[in-house]
Amino acid sequence: MCELLGMNCNTPTDIRFSFSGLIQRGGRTGPHRDGWGIAFYEGRGCRTFHDPLPGAASEVAKLVQSLSVKSLTVICHIRKATNGRVCLENTHPFTRELWGRQWAFAHNGRLKGVKRWDLRFYRPIGTTDSEHAFCWMLDQIRMRFAEPPKREKDLRDLVGELAETLGGCGSFNMLLSDSRQLYCHCSTHLSWLTRRAPFGEARLIDKELAVDFAEETSPKDVVSVIATRPLTDNEPWRIMERDKMMVFRDGLALGESLGG
Amino acid sequence: MCELLGMNCNTPTDIRFSFSGLIQRGGRTGPHRDGWGIAFYEGRGCRTFHDPLPGAASEVAKLVQSLSVKSLTVICHIRKATNGRVCLENTHPFTRELWGRQWAFAHNGRLKGVKRWDLRFYRPIGTTDSEHAFCWMLDQIRMRFAEPPKREKDLRDLVGELAETLGGCGSFNMLLSDSRQLYCHCSTHLSWLTRRAPFGEARLIDKELAVDFAEETSPKDVVSVIATRPLTDNEPWRIMERDKMMVFRDGLALGESLGG
Repeated sequence: MCELLGMNCNTPTDIRFSFSGLIQRGGRTGPHRDGWGIAFYEGRGCRTFHDPLPGAASEVAKLVQSLSVKSLTVICHIRKATNGRVCLENTHPFTRELWGRQWAFAHNGRLKGVKRWDLRFYRPIGTTDSEHAFCWMLDQIRMRFAEPPKREKDLRDLVGELAETLGGCGSFNMLLSDSRQLYCHCSTHLSWLTRRAPFGEARLIDKELAVDFAEETSPKDVVSVIATRPLTDNEPWRIMERDKMMVFRDGLALGESLGG
Repeated sequence: MCELLGMNCNTPTDIRFSFSGLIQRGGRTGPHRDGWGIAFYEGRGCRTFHDPLPGAASEVAKLVQSLSVKSLTVICHIRKATNGRVCLENTHPFTRELWGRQWAFAHNGRLKGVKRWDLRFYRPIGTTDSEHAFCWMLDQIRMRFAEPPKREKDLRDLVGELAETLGGCGSFNMLLSDSRQLYCHCSTHLSWLTRRAPFGEARLIDKELAVDFAEETSPKDVVSVIATRPLTDNEPWRIMERDKMMVFRDGLALGESLGG
């Protein structure tokens, strides 16, 4: 199995605090030593870093922790290989272009039989069931919508149906983005948290590190973080419902209000 | 205009020597300050680094110079924006998947009217004429060959025809790879060089740095380097013929023999 980390914000935000906790699980506080990767959306562009080395020992991971990349949406994955050998092309997140948008995808779980499903437009470069599932999802979206649907809800509904179908083949914890929204499907484990004013201190579980977000943010910032397991031990993480998809946009879970 | 750097080898090779010369032209010894990018093939996988900042000032470029990535094929680009604003999505090399292979593309030159050409499968994410031309090339390849042609020569011939068509619209100095071969089309400026035993010393033009390849290589290594302008001042760079395509594989220019 693997671990996932996603972030979605209303203002470009630095993910290094969360990332520096997660990456410890890549060989130090966790067994996910078969590579890691991260995709940062910046405008329409998407910058990725991948390494088939354990995150805790990776030079590229050290760089990512030293770079101040501010992003509206981030997808990150640390891998414990169950399907497909350890190599660059099997390292999540995977990316493909559809409608002139860059899509990024990361998955935790196993999917039985998916690699036999027919593909039409997109084909995997590596040998994981995950990348095959991603190609299949994009194929289905492309066949249903040659152009982006006018109502974003139509796209959300389709992504939800596809995720449900994949969930029926095993376990499908997924983070997916088309640069506009972050789609999160939970089969077994995903937790999430929205940080907003009044901001306070957050303390990592996997590393001696605390940050006072009141000093790092402005009062209007809204930032949601999604992870396989909570990354901090003093914040109100919520467990995502099984077999359910949540969609984040502008830092908020759709359907949730800013509230008090 | 921009500058290009490509490498193709018969054994995974570190490009840092050449890269450290080129990147100086990104704002220090040259005017190409509108971003840079590099694609490293490792097996079927392809790792890219992009930055819209000037190469000579980029933190990511410093990282790439500190990483020992060994690769059979590399494509690198430093940008001086002529078409499309300075941002991540307009930064070369561009990548797309076709036949389960990752294709990478970088271009120097201007192409008139290309952005009005119809596209079918692939669409640009950014706004450059270069990315539009890349999408058009892959569209044409995909329409002609739904599966990879059995004879690689058929693919080379088609890529050559497409490059010639694009060259007719302006200037089209291009590096393209499908992970197996490196295609180089010269409209105006490309130089190349093949290093092989007996290896000697090479001295960069843009930076005080020399390397003795006899110490860094084995006698069987064959490495070709392609660049807009020569990167060293004591090696026999050859000027590529205008309006011609060269293809490199296993470190050698196809059609050239190892010779004495």
